[in-house]
Amino acid sequence: MNAEKIPDIIIGRLPVYLRALQRMADNGIKTTSSQELGEHVGISAAQIRKDISQFGEFGKQGTGYSITYLLDKLREILKVDRIWDVALIGAGDMGHALARYQGFTNRGFHIVMVFDNNKEKVGRKIDNFVIEDADKMIERLKASNVKIAMLTIPATSAQSVTDKLVQAGVRAILNYAPISLNVPNNVKVQYIDPATHLQRMTYYL
Amino acid sequence: MNAEKIPDIIIGRLPVYLRALQRMADNGIKTTSSQELGEHVGISAAQIRKDISQFGEFGKQGTGYSITYLLDKLREILKVDRIWDVALIGAGDMGHALARYQGFTNRGFHIVMVFDNNKEKVGRKIDNFVIEDADKMIERLKASNVKIAMLTIPATSAQSVTDKLVQAGVRAILNYAPISLNVPNNVKVQYIDPATHLQRMTYYL
Repeated sequence: MNAEKIPDIIIGRLPVYLRALQRMADNGIKTTSSQELGEHVGISAAQIRKDISQFGEFGKQGTGYSITYLLDKLREILKVDRIWDVALIGAGDMGHALARYQGFTNRGFHIVMVFDNNKEKVGRKIDNFVIEDADKMIERLKASNVKIAMLTIPATSAQSVTDKLVQAGVRAILNYAPISLNVPNNVKVQYIDPATHLQRMTYYL
Repeated sequence: MNAEKIPDIIIGRLPVYLRALQRMADNGIKTTSSQELGEHVGISAAQIRKDISQFGEFGKQGTGYSITYLLDKLREILKVDRIWDVALIGAGDMGHALARYQGFTNRGFHIVMVFDNNKEKVGRKIDNFVIEDADKMIERLKASNVKIAMLTIPATSAQSVTDKLVQAGVRAILNYAPISLNVPNNVKVQYIDPATHLQRMTYYL
């Protein structure tokens, strides 16, 4: 299995399969087919078979996939068969929502630090998190093993904070700031910008 | 220009170009090149030229693109040269964050209604929005011209609420619930699920 050889577009679909399979497992379902999984995620059965076959032989002709087995394999492939510590940068409305978000549970992620540059917020709590001073961010990240950060700060400071995150060893950034970030090749960025997602749909209306 | 002929992957990049160009315009920049725009958004100049040429001739050889002209054209293509009314379904932490989000300003969207099924929340305010009863949602949407909804409710009720939205005339849904939705062909769905975005990056770590 070589990270360079699997197209990123396929990697992008695996978390969607994982989520749907987890949901089936939660509902007590033991096996599924490409057809059934496809109906859940809105992707053709042929595409699903092709995507999954990139990583080896998972299903048996006629009997379909064992959901437990496929879940284990997908978690292993995506490296979420462990828990990743995540730093949250920005304790505004979106930062608060993410700090309280229950959807990371059992999906491989755990927020361990929350930073903000507003001195009035530093020391305050969001549920169990104490908001830390952004001035200490590089130092704190370097002393930890945090490789993943979520960025919920204004666009104007997003690039400079990103540069600091990279300097501190962060290798994956989920960016909520409405701006494209420049990062070295060994750093991954994913974007969440609701306006961009909406604009992608209005074209069709 | 035929909506069926432009691949969706290209449509998906246009909002990113629009955002970067808007940012340049805000900084007083008048013209740009595929090269420069590419550096801002992390996409090759050749890809940008190809994407933009799908919609006609925008740039002049050697002088680059007029940013104002390209902005106008992109807004027209994506149909965000107008303001779309948006309904927000779910007044939890994420719903609150979206109701207060400043990032929709000047990007074509305006939240006009907020619904929740929790009777204790109904009648309360989020800034200027009064939270309305989800039981009245279909009726209210049908009486309005709302074609777009953002869904920030638990996965367990997301499909049933989606069915109601479709029944009420909604044609584009931005779904924050961590579940794939089944909708008719004439309805578009975009997904925002931070865990899925994070899992797409851990593969590379």
